[in-house]
Amino acid sequence: MPINKLPRGVAIVGAGMSKFGAFPDKNGRDLFVEAYKEMTRSVDKGLDPSAIECFYLGNFSSDLFERQGHTAPLLADAVGLTPIPAARVENACASGATALRQGVIAIASGLYDVVLVGGAEKMTNLPTADVTDTLATAADVPFEIAAGFTFPGFYAAIATAYMARYGMKPEHLMNVAIKNHDNGALNPKAQFGVTIQKWMEGRVAAALKKGKPAPAWSDIWDFLHDDSANPMVAWPLRLFDCSPITDGASAVLLVAEERVREFTDHPIRILGSAQASDAALHDRADLTSLPAAKLAASRAYEMAGVTPKDIRIAEVHDCFTIAEVVASEDIDFFAPGEGFKAAEDGMTAREGAKPINTSGGLKSKGHPVGASGVAQAVEVWKQMRVEAGERQVPGDVPLAMTHNVGATGSTCVVHIYERRD
Amino acid sequence: MPINKLPRGVAIVGAGMSKFGAFPDKNGRDLFVEAYKEMTRSVDKGLDPSAIECFYLGNFSSDLFERQGHTAPLLADAVGLTPIPAARVENACASGATALRQGVIAIASGLYDVVLVGGAEKMTNLPTADVTDTLATAADVPFEIAAGFTFPGFYAAIATAYMARYGMKPEHLMNVAIKNHDNGALNPKAQFGVTIQKWMEGRVAAALKKGKPAPAWSDIWDFLHDDSANPMVAWPLRLFDCSPITDGASAVLLVAEERVREFTDHPIRILGSAQASDAALHDRADLTSLPAAKLAASRAYEMAGVTPKDIRIAEVHDCFTIAEVVASEDIDFFAPGEGFKAAEDGMTAREGAKPINTSGGLKSKGHPVGASGVAQAVEVWKQMRVEAGERQVPGDVPLAMTHNVGATGSTCVVHIYERRD
Repeated sequence: MPINKLPRGVAIVGAGMSKFGAFPDKNGRDLFVEAYKEMTRSVDKGLDPSAIECFYLGNFSSDLFERQGHTAPLLADAVGLTPIPAARVENACASGATALRQGVIAIASGLYDVVLVGGAEKMTNLPTADVTDTLATAADVPFEIAAGFTFPGFYAAIATAYMARYGMKPEHLMNVAIKNHDNGALNPKAQFGVTIQKWMEGRVAAALKKGKPAPAWSDIWDFLHDDSANPMVAWPLRLFDCSPITDGASAVLLVAEERVREFTDHPIRILGSAQASDAALHDRADLTSLPAAKLAASRAYEMAGVTPKDIRIAEVHDCFTIAEVVASEDIDFFAPGEGFKAAEDGMTAREGAKPINTSGGLKSKGHPVGASGVAQAVEVWKQMRVEAGERQVPGDVPLAMTHNVGATGSTCVVHIYERRD
Repeated sequence: MPINKLPRGVAIVGAGMSKFGAFPDKNGRDLFVEAYKEMTRSVDKGLDPSAIECFYLGNFSSDLFERQGHTAPLLADAVGLTPIPAARVENACASGATALRQGVIAIASGLYDVVLVGGAEKMTNLPTADVTDTLATAADVPFEIAAGFTFPGFYAAIATAYMARYGMKPEHLMNVAIKNHDNGALNPKAQFGVTIQKWMEGRVAAALKKGKPAPAWSDIWDFLHDDSANPMVAWPLRLFDCSPITDGASAVLLVAEERVREFTDHPIRILGSAQASDAALHDRADLTSLPAAKLAASRAYEMAGVTPKDIRIAEVHDCFTIAEVVASEDIDFFAPGEGFKAAEDGMTAREGAKPINTSGGLKSKGHPVGASGVAQAVEVWKQMRVEAGERQVPGDVPLAMTHNVGATGSTCVVHIYERRD
C-alpha cells in the first residue's frame, strides 16, 4: 500500500457557482457557463483561460435528465477550453467530489499544474416522478428498486434504524431542517433562500390574501408537524426532511502548490482527499452509519495529519436530514448516537462549536446532484476566505471539511482544506 | 505547462475480456465479472485481489441502456473489491481509454500502486432504433441531433468529405470491412467470428436450404454491392461499413513499475498516454481528419519518445470503416489521403507493414461502447505477449498503439505500449 500522502501540494485558487433553483429556460451547459464565469472572476490575480490544462466534470445523469451524454468536452468547448482533455466522472450524488478528487490526483501526478473541476446537473426538465425514478438508478437497481425502494424510502430506513438504536424521535430531524434553512436564507445562491419561519408566515399571509382562514400554526413546530404543510414522504421523513430537485452548476480551479502565487495570495490548500466504496444498502448489516463515509473520513484525516477537533466547519451530504445526523457522526464530529443531540443543542449552527452546512446544505441551497460535491468546496472556499457575507461563521476557519455521498453510501468522498495565506 | 512525461512508470500485468456479442440473459455486471475473471487468470504470478487499490470503469450510458447508474461501486462490489475507491468515467465511445488514462494518472500520482481499469456496456436490451437514439446522445444534441443527424450520418459526412478531397470511392471502404472480418474470424471473443466470404457462403447455403434460388453473387465484391445483402445505411456507408450493437466488458490491471515483478516477468509498459477534446462536428472547418486524434497521437508519441515508424501494430477506433481510414492518417501511419490506399494495398492487414485492428476492430469484434477502449488494450497485451493465437502478427511487437474516439472526435485518447521483459 503506497503512503497516504499527496506527493504534490494542490490548492483551490478560484471558485464559483450558478444560482441553484429551477430554471426552465437554461440547460446544463448554460448553468455551467455561469459557474465558470464566477470562478474566473474569483481568481484574485486574474485568470488567463489558456493556463487551464485539463477538465473534470462531475455529473450524475445528463443522459436521463437531458438526453445528453459526452458532457465534459461539450462544456469545455462552451467555455472555450478546447482542445484540453475533458472527462466526465460519475458516482451518483458523489460525482462532484469524485471529479474534484480526480483533479487533485491529476495535479499530484505532475502531468498537470492547472485543472478545472466542474459539476453540473439540470434536473427540473422531467416531471417529479421521473426525477425520482432517475435518482433511483443510483441504487442497486435489480436488487433494491425491483423491491419497491426509492431514495426517500432508503433514508427512511436509515432513520428508523437510527431511531431504534439511539432513541431519536422524528422531531429531532427538524432541527437539521430549521438550521439549514436558516443558513440557506443568507445564501444568495440557495434555491430556498428563506427560513422555515418565513416560509410559514408566507403560507399564513397567502391564506389570508385568498380570504381563507389563517392556518392555526402557533409556531414553527406546529407547522412542521402539520400533514398539509409538511406532508409525510416516507415515515419518519416529511417534505422538509428532503432536499429539493435542483438545476445548478459549480466550478473550482485547482493549481499545483508551486504555481499558486501566480493566481492568488489567499489559496485554499487541499490537505486531505479520500474516497471509499461500499456494497449497496440491501447488503449491509447496519444502517446507522455509512462505512464508506467513516473510512473516507479516517483516511482524509490521516492524509491531512489533523483530527476532527481541528476542523472548524464541514459541509456534509444532507440529501435528507437523517443523512446530516449520520454524517456528523461518520466524520467523527460527534460520537455514534450523539449527532441528533448535537443538532438539537445548536452545536452545528453557525454560532455553534461545529458549524455544519453553513451554505444551507443540499436541503436549502439545493441539490443539483453532480454539482453538489463541487459546490461544497465553493462554500468552504468562501468561508475560509471570509467571503461568506451574512452567513460567515465567527472567527477563523483554518481547516474545513467536505463530505459527499453517492446513493446510500456506495461511494463517499471526503476532502480537508486548509487556509494557507 | 508541465513536462509531457509520466513521472512514474506504469505497466499492464493482466488483461481480460468477456465474449462480445448479444447476451439477452446477462447484464453489464455479469459481463464485467467475466472480464475480471479472465484478467485475474492472466496474471502470470497470480493475483491476490486485496492488492487492488482503486478502480476506474469506462461506461458510456448504463443509465439509458440499463437504467442503472452509479455503476463503478456496484461492479467493484460484484467482484469483491469493496471498499476501494471506484469511479465511472464517461467520454462516449472513448470512455474506456479515458478510464485507462485515469488509471495511469492515479499510479503516476503515487497515491496507488495497483489499479483496476474496466470497461462495460450492455446495449442489446433496447430495440435498435432506441440504441441509435441513445448513441446519438454522445453528439452535441441541441445543435446536431435536432438537425436530424445520428451517427451513421455523421460518419457518412466524414466519408463524403474525404471522398471529395482525396478521390476515394465507396468500394475502398470495403477493404477495411473485409480485413477486419478476416481478423475477427480468428478472434474467439469477437461478435462476428466469421469472414465476409464465409458470411456470403452462409447466405447462399441458407437460400438453397429453403429451396430458393441461390443469390447471383460471383464474389465478395458482388455481395458487398448488393443492396439486399449489404443495404445502404447512410450513403456511402452500407451495413458492412458499420460496427454492430454489442454487449461486452473488458479489464486490465495496471501496476507501478517498481512493483511489476510481483505480478509478471512479461509486463506491457504504458509508454505514452494522451487525450484531447474538440468542438462537435457541426462546428469544424474540415471533416477529413479529427484534430483531437492528431493532437492526442502527437502528444503520445512525444511522451513515449517514439515515432510512427516505431509502432508495429495499432488498434484504432473503427466504429465505421471510414473512421479507420481517417484514424490511420491521424496517428501518422499514412499521409493524409493515403489511408484508403494503404488499406487497399494490404498494408494494414496482419501480414502487412502496419497491421491495424488485428482483433477484428470494433467492426467485427464488436463495439460495446464503454468497453471498447479497454478491449483495445487487451488485444495489444495479447499481441505483444505472443498470445493472440491464429491472429498473431508475424515477428516481434515491441511497440503498439491504441486510439479510441468519443463521438465524432470530441474526445480522442491515444496510448503507446512497450513490451519490456
